[in-house]
Amino acid sequence: MLSFESDYIEGAHPKILEALTKTNMECLSGYGADAYTKSAREKIAAACSLPDAQIAFLTGGTQTNQIVIDTMLHQYEGVVATQSGHISVHEAGAIEFTGRKVLTLPAHNGKIDAAELDSYITDFYNDGNHEHMVFPGMVYISHPTEYGTLYSKKELTEISTTCRKHKIPLFLDGARLGYGLMSKQTDLTMTDIAELCDVFYIGGTKVGALCGEAVVFTKKNMPLHFEHLVKKHGALLAKGRLLAIQFDTLFTDDLYFEISRNAIERAEELKNLFIKKGYKFFIDSPTNQQFVILENEKLKELQKNVKFSFWEKYDETHTVVRFATSWATTSEKIAELEKLL
Amino acid sequence: MLSFESDYIEGAHPKILEALTKTNMECLSGYGADAYTKSAREKIAAACSLPDAQIAFLTGGTQTNQIVIDTMLHQYEGVVATQSGHISVHEAGAIEFTGRKVLTLPAHNGKIDAAELDSYITDFYNDGNHEHMVFPGMVYISHPTEYGTLYSKKELTEISTTCRKHKIPLFLDGARLGYGLMSKQTDLTMTDIAELCDVFYIGGTKVGALCGEAVVFTKKNMPLHFEHLVKKHGALLAKGRLLAIQFDTLFTDDLYFEISRNAIERAEELKNLFIKKGYKFFIDSPTNQQFVILENEKLKELQKNVKFSFWEKYDETHTVVRFATSWATTSEKIAELEKLL
Amino acid sequence: MLSFESDYIEGAHPKILEALTKTNMECLSGYGADAYTKSAREKIAAACSLPDAQIAFLTGGTQTNQIVIDTMLHQYEGVVATQSGHISVHEAGAIEFTGRKVLTLPAHNGKIDAAELDSYITDFYNDGNHEHMVFPGMVYISHPTEYGTLYSKKELTEISTTCRKHKIPLFLDGARLGYGLMSKQTDLTMTDIAELCDVFYIGGTKVGALCGEAVVFTKKNMPLHFEHLVKKHGALLAKGRLLAIQFDTLFTDDLYFEISRNAIERAEELKNLFIKKGYKFFIDSPTNQQFVILENEKLKELQKNVKFSFWEKYDETHTVVRFATSWATTSEKIAELEKLL
Amino acid sequence: MLSFESDYIEGAHPKILEALTKTNMECLSGYGADAYTKSAREKIAAACSLPDAQIAFLTGGTQTNQIVIDTMLHQYEGVVATQSGHISVHEAGAIEFTGRKVLTLPAHNGKIDAAELDSYITDFYNDGNHEHMVFPGMVYISHPTEYGTLYSKKELTEISTTCRKHKIPLFLDGARLGYGLMSKQTDLTMTDIAELCDVFYIGGTKVGALCGEAVVFTKKNMPLHFEHLVKKHGALLAKGRLLAIQFDTLFTDDLYFEISRNAIERAEELKNLFIKKGYKFFIDSPTNQQFVILENEKLKELQKNVKFSFWEKYDETHTVVRFATSWATTSEKIAELEKLL
Repeated sequence: MLSFESDYIEGAHPKILEALTKTNMECLSGYGADAYTKSAREKIAAACSLPDAQIAFLTGGTQTNQIVIDTMLHQYEGVVATQSGHISVHEAGAIEFTGRKVLTLPAHNGKIDAAELDSYITDFYNDGNHEHMVFPGMVYISHPTEYGTLYSKKELTEISTTCRKHKIPLFLDGARLGYGLMSKQTDLTMTDIAELCDVFYIGGTKVGALCGEAVVFTKKNMPLHFEHLVKKHGALLAKGRLLAIQFDTLFTDDLYFEISRNAIERAEELKNLFIKKGYKFFIDSPTNQQFVILENEKLKELQKNVKFSFWEKYDETHTVVRFATSWATTSEKIAELEKLL
Repeated sequence: MLSFESDYIEGAHPKILEALTKTNMECLSGYGADAYTKSAREKIAAACSLPDAQIAFLTGGTQTNQIVIDTMLHQYEGVVATQSGHISVHEAGAIEFTGRKVLTLPAHNGKIDAAELDSYITDFYNDGNHEHMVFPGMVYISHPTEYGTLYSKKELTEISTTCRKHKIPLFLDGARLGYGLMSKQTDLTMTDIAELCDVFYIGGTKVGALCGEAVVFTKKNMPLHFEHLVKKHGALLAKGRLLAIQFDTLFTDDLYFEISRNAIERAEELKNLFIKKGYKFFIDSPTNQQFVILENEKLKELQKNVKFSFWEKYDETHTVVRFATSWATTSEKIAELEKLL
Repeated sequence: MLSFESDYIEGAHPKILEALTKTNMECLSGYGADAYTKSAREKIAAACSLPDAQIAFLTGGTQTNQIVIDTMLHQYEGVVATQSGHISVHEAGAIEFTGRKVLTLPAHNGKIDAAELDSYITDFYNDGNHEHMVFPGMVYISHPTEYGTLYSKKELTEISTTCRKHKIPLFLDGARLGYGLMSKQTDLTMTDIAELCDVFYIGGTKVGALCGEAVVFTKKNMPLHFEHLVKKHGALLAKGRLLAIQFDTLFTDDLYFEISRNAIERAEELKNLFIKKGYKFFIDSPTNQQFVILENEKLKELQKNVKFSFWEKYDETHTVVRFATSWATTSEKIAELEKLL
Repeated sequence: MLSFESDYIEGAHPKILEALTKTNMECLSGYGADAYTKSAREKIAAACSLPDAQIAFLTGGTQTNQIVIDTMLHQYEGVVATQSGHISVHEAGAIEFTGRKVLTLPAHNGKIDAAELDSYITDFYNDGNHEHMVFPGMVYISHPTEYGTLYSKKELTEISTTCRKHKIPLFLDGARLGYGLMSKQTDLTMTDIAELCDVFYIGGTKVGALCGEAVVFTKKNMPLHFEHLVKKHGALLAKGRLLAIQFDTLFTDDLYFEISRNAIERAEELKNLFIKKGYKFFIDSPTNQQFVILENEKLKELQKNVKFSFWEKYDETHTVVRFATSWATTSEKIAELEKLL
């Protein structure tokens, strides 16, 4: 069955499987003490124009959010996110599991507004009872957001400036970072992101890897004994090669960016197809996730032949659904969908 | 350089890479809702002679121990283990991180003694202050143990009987289970283990997989909403296929057992080599980890050409080191070592 | 200086100090194994018309909320509260500290709306992604609320019915319960509350005790080994007599209700005074907390002679402040305030 | 019935009840923002000869241990204690509940040996796998110990020196500190303790207060936003006056020391009585807890008329029991016991 269910329905980019196969019988030390980990770190640091970047490889997105937030916050602090942020809603309470509160702000097209953020923090310190409240200790944003939208350079700069004004780190969840960077509507480069954020991660799971996210600490601010803390969270892989070789491959010859571009181009075809067929969009997304409003009857009919994701109820007779493209989506697949619409 | 550093220095069994490659472009739903997860579960249940087994796939050993222990204990309980148990010493406090205490008993060749366990629990309930102490709520054993030793069927039955007497579950950490089952000195089958334990895991990371452990709940006792709890611990993979396809391959045509046998046979060659050369063993291990006592001078010399693991100080002039074989170790490698000894 | 800062500015009702003094040299066993604990439990059970009630004494409100919520939830559950609930805002993240998420609903005069609650839970289970979200596992309400308002019997019954429909417990935070029960605008008795809630607490700290809250489990649903769990949270007093003798006194000859009535009568005098002087109220509170809107200039002037609490900014030139009466407030004090207004 | 069950069977020293009664109707701000808190802090700082001491008041011993340990450790650290330490055995897992591991050393008469401590930490850092182990991040000792024994000035100095060598704080649990300081066999003063320890607490619950422990941070090392952290742990009292007035009274005119001396003098009478009657001691305790070996038959007989505590099984026919004196024990009580022995 035709599937646009998510951007993690296929395996890995073939070059990754080739690299894993080619290096398979090399005897490598565990836990990241291998040459591929070193090489992958260097390539990512170069791609960020940040020779001093400290880079760690983790397995998945929720795990990465949990570990970064838990290890960077002070005990009296929580993390600020939008109400629709992944950590606010869809991580099974993984952030709270480690004792941290998620403090929420309204989402505007999935995004935090810098002025609202500034007011929130300022009001917090002006509140006479704030010693009994959780301190805002970090700002979490996702880019692209959970609704496929993007921060402009101006917007990200304003948020970064607000964070620095209040001396708290800015953390960018880049589970789909490649798709954000290759969008035709972005003016942000990876170098900009590395400069404006204190920590961010480059998503692999949704962008061509079997699994894996690369966390980049941009200000020599990796928590002390980070490998220990990763193990304490149950997240340290014995065979560090699995993550390292994948990222080493993705950051060789710009593969990460090239395959991300494919998702964007297919998403445009998808968008045009929906427009042509008279569908309405729930939000204008410039990345690989497209949110379409379907009549409930149409939805049921379509589900017989195509997989896509339920997103939210729109009204009594309509539903918002998501179609996602990925590094692996082909134009043929879009053409097949056209026949079905 | 020749390496006997651990049983996770190579990648994955070639058949696993083949299977990952062959299935790579299939579009599969995430989080375990795919056909390979179903198939792997069925094959493992069959290998355990336990059609009702509930099976979950996790990424690594410490993660598995953390999640099983945290989700199966009541809030007033801790887990009983030996003082040398992996969870007691080498998991970076991952068990305590989730609020659980590890209660320790002496290790006898790395093993818990059933009579000591029984006394411990009986004395606990006889202690007038026990409401202020952590309740023994589960028994954790590793098989093979951290010292490569094995429980006999009689020993495991006694521990299982003690656990049932006191109505607490028995959890067996099988990070190296294949090597235990293929040892020539064992009288335990996987069916025995499934019968005697309430939960156990079949190690993949150290037995031919890139990563992955298969947790088997043997008494329809998988905690409610286990997938949610795995995500809450940051451990749920989006691409469940990565773990499923590996275990599906390992449990096709007895591959898991066959490749485990190789490690045992190579370990025997290794053992004989050390005996022939007049080395002494720290402990008599019937599995793939061999613990040799080296003079410190000899150790330094050997390290120039061979990798092995520091284990512990033996006395002022000697050190205990570990040589490990694996599914991938060849007789040629042992022959090369002979030249160096 | 005249103070209406809170309802915990005075010590304890004199009868409590007398009882503590009178029993002071009696030798009593610790941790609640004394006759006063038994007696206090019996008196409270009688006051609730609930002979089977299980009752525990804790030291303060946040502690009580933390322990009740943490010990009653399943691992996959969080607690539902209003956005202005004490646990949502003013408990320093104590709920999240134990790994639990607070799920928020809008507040209507500080209260949860039963229909909104029902929709929230229904929508949760209808959401295809709900396994990745925190399950609603308990409802938390405060009565009186943080804004001094009260649930009617009809409203509480509807919330209770909704909870039972979805099989989750209803927890009522009664930090100021006495003031709610003695309000002239309530139709709820303690017997009603005991019947409609699964667990609730009777506040002592703010109603005449030096410290202490009495938690009432109404459905034989006290978590197993609760004393152990209280100690695990660091909350078990060695001298259980301190809490027991206070509650034994408060529940002798209806002292708890009598002294609560005083706060209500003084609050009415206070309210009338403000009305007479032309002040406006932020919310219409039928209990001991009165929320007045002050011009910022007036606020500064008044602060020179009277203590009250900053509540929130109203607009650029006005502020909401709180005046609280208590069991100990005298009419003389109100008269003094009149002179100052 | 005659009771030597513990040192917390009576209420509070009468002067404390007088002070609570006398100040009862004063209107005081909550959470420690009152004049008595200030005064008590100053008196304790003076008693420690440490004008810069930072002092916080908490309710009980386990709570204090949990909060001090949890807020002072780094995330990769655990606390080192003896195997018989209160935090190791009798705190219901309260330390692990906050994610911290207790690392144990052998107890010698209840005490840590400085040389063993030094070896333990040195070996830890020499262990090639230590990144996967919990770092020793604090040393916890109790003084008097759980067996009533005392560190000499030399012993405490050695432990302190070892801690400073390895740059980790020394935390002294003084639940019974007064009884240690007034022992005739001690050469340690409170000033010595304040100098040698990084943090310690002065026990009130067992030394004349209704409840309460005073934590003294001796090196300007109180964790940032400590009041917030106390609330986050559920331990902040609204009526801070309750703890403050008690400690203010105890540290007026050396009351704390005087009443402690009484317990010591009565313990000597008790000791002499047991010696005279031919009883044997389990350990030689110079403080208020006396550990006597009783024949099981004698134990049963005695229990009919006297309360004391079961400590541990000695052999098949004998049991170790504890008799405790306190600030309130009278010579008449000892005389009554003599009649019964």
